[in-house]
Amino acid sequence: MKIGIIGAGSIGLLLASYLSNTFSITLYTRTTEQAKEINDHGLHLIKGTEQFKFDIFALPINKWTGSEDLTIIAVKQYQLDSLLRNLDGANSHQALLFLQNGMGHLELLTKLQPENIYVGSIEHGAQKVNANTVRHNGEGKINVAVFRGEATKLVDFAKKVPETFPFIIKDDYYKILVNKLIINAVINPLTAILQVKNGELVDNPFYYTALRNLFTEIAYILNIDQAENLQKQLMDICKKTANNYSSMLKDVEAKRKTEVDAILGFLLTEAKKQEKEAPLVESYYSLIKGKEENWRDSV
Amino acid sequence: MKIGIIGAGSIGLLLASYLSNTFSITLYTRTTEQAKEINDHGLHLIKGTEQFKFDIFALPINKWTGSEDLTIIAVKQYQLDSLLRNLDGANSHQALLFLQNGMGHLELLTKLQPENIYVGSIEHGAQKVNANTVRHNGEGKINVAVFRGEATKLVDFAKKVPETFPFIIKDDYYKILVNKLIINAVINPLTAILQVKNGELVDNPFYYTALRNLFTEIAYILNIDQAENLQKQLMDICKKTANNYSSMLKDVEAKRKTEVDAILGFLLTEAKKQEKEAPLVESYYSLIKGKEENWRDSV
Repeated sequence: MKIGIIGAGSIGLLLASYLSNTFSITLYTRTTEQAKEINDHGLHLIKGTEQFKFDIFALPINKWTGSEDLTIIAVKQYQLDSLLRNLDGANSHQALLFLQNGMGHLELLTKLQPENIYVGSIEHGAQKVNANTVRHNGEGKINVAVFRGEATKLVDFAKKVPETFPFIIKDDYYKILVNKLIINAVINPLTAILQVKNGELVDNPFYYTALRNLFTEIAYILNIDQAENLQKQLMDICKKTANNYSSMLKDVEAKRKTEVDAILGFLLTEAKKQEKEAPLVESYYSLIKGKEENWRDSV
Repeated sequence: MKIGIIGAGSIGLLLASYLSNTFSITLYTRTTEQAKEINDHGLHLIKGTEQFKFDIFALPINKWTGSEDLTIIAVKQYQLDSLLRNLDGANSHQALLFLQNGMGHLELLTKLQPENIYVGSIEHGAQKVNANTVRHNGEGKINVAVFRGEATKLVDFAKKVPETFPFIIKDDYYKILVNKLIINAVINPLTAILQVKNGELVDNPFYYTALRNLFTEIAYILNIDQAENLQKQLMDICKKTANNYSSMLKDVEAKRKTEVDAILGFLLTEAKKQEKEAPLVESYYSLIKGKEENWRDSV
């Protein structure tokens, strides 16, 4: 089975590493340089104290023709718009799996040509070390579901993936994404603003109050029924990933663009649509956007 | 005119410096060591590139008998409770001027013996460099008003202070304190959490949104009528002190106890009394208290 992976950031590199022994992988990179680096020197995966090397075939993204059985799109949500406008090879027979955080991209997906569109959310923690090296920090699973079309290609794919890197097929794509969104929308901004590891949000009683208040506002915006379950799940994730730095905190520390628009920005739009007050979402959004604004100025 | 100054932090040292040529000053310190340091080596004031030395008579606080015509209390609000319980010399003939931030201490003042009680708020920026050195970072005035009793001693004092260090007598103590409280409650937590100078709160459009939202919530809690004027005043202060680091930011950076209880804590209590929602005040309060909690752990 031929698999295309678009995007060679931390998640793209992680997918390519774990899937390369089972599938025929083509990894599509944004730059020609990165493709060359991967083709010439292989892809390195660091896990704990171990390091593994994989031979991966990489191409720059403009070479994508959609010839693979399934293409996994692993770019950031804010890169999706320009990517899809330039994806010339897209036609109606393809199957695409989108692994972005947030939910703002769903509207974009309805306008695509390919019949079979899947979405998913990732629980893994990964960090791109350099153009051809990725560190796997936290194991998890990837939850996937049909957004539109037939499940066939997704089922075929999920059956074959290695046991150590599971893809779990779920019925309800909305639920997968909304759960991930809520978790991201609480953990990411708080850790990024406070500059603390995930675990501190539940260990520190004052931070926990801030977490609970933000969660409650978000659950209200998204009309969540069983908020208690989800709040418990949120706390479990903070405990399980206690020593991890959230992706938004890492972005803020590296002065990179964050995913705040995909996460809190989406929630703000939802709140406005429903004419709901969202003081906390709006303020945390402003604090993170303000940080981004400052780096823009200093560049 | 004999003036006592209780508290030898940044404000106490600043007052002693500027008032020592005009009045007979006794400066009361928390520790015997600091009193000795000041008595032995004088008090140093740094202003820009200039440095001035003053001979000041200092005593540890337990030597205070209330023999001065006016005693200015320049400790932090959170130190006031234990200070007043141990102030043995207090009697009904004294005049006391309280210069604390916040408003939570007003209730405490109603229970004191002295007949003449004044309160005030400080616009100066000052930083304690060491036990007997203070840096004057930003010039301003000190607004004072009668809280209870006769104005006589306050008026006598205010007439005599040097022109370069003005004390302005106002009619309405509540207004002085509430204005200062609002300004502190907005600028301090935001700058402390974002770790930015005051000016960035108005220069950065996203931070400005966060500032406006917090201001609006606080004005609602305090039932402020002319919020537009006060918001303009708040912006002017941010611009005028653009290059300053707020006291709460300095406290956070030095991992010292902040004045968040006197400022946001007071507003939270007010909101609860009136059964008003205060999501932003509550969250910013939690974020700052959480930081304090972390240092406590690490000590």
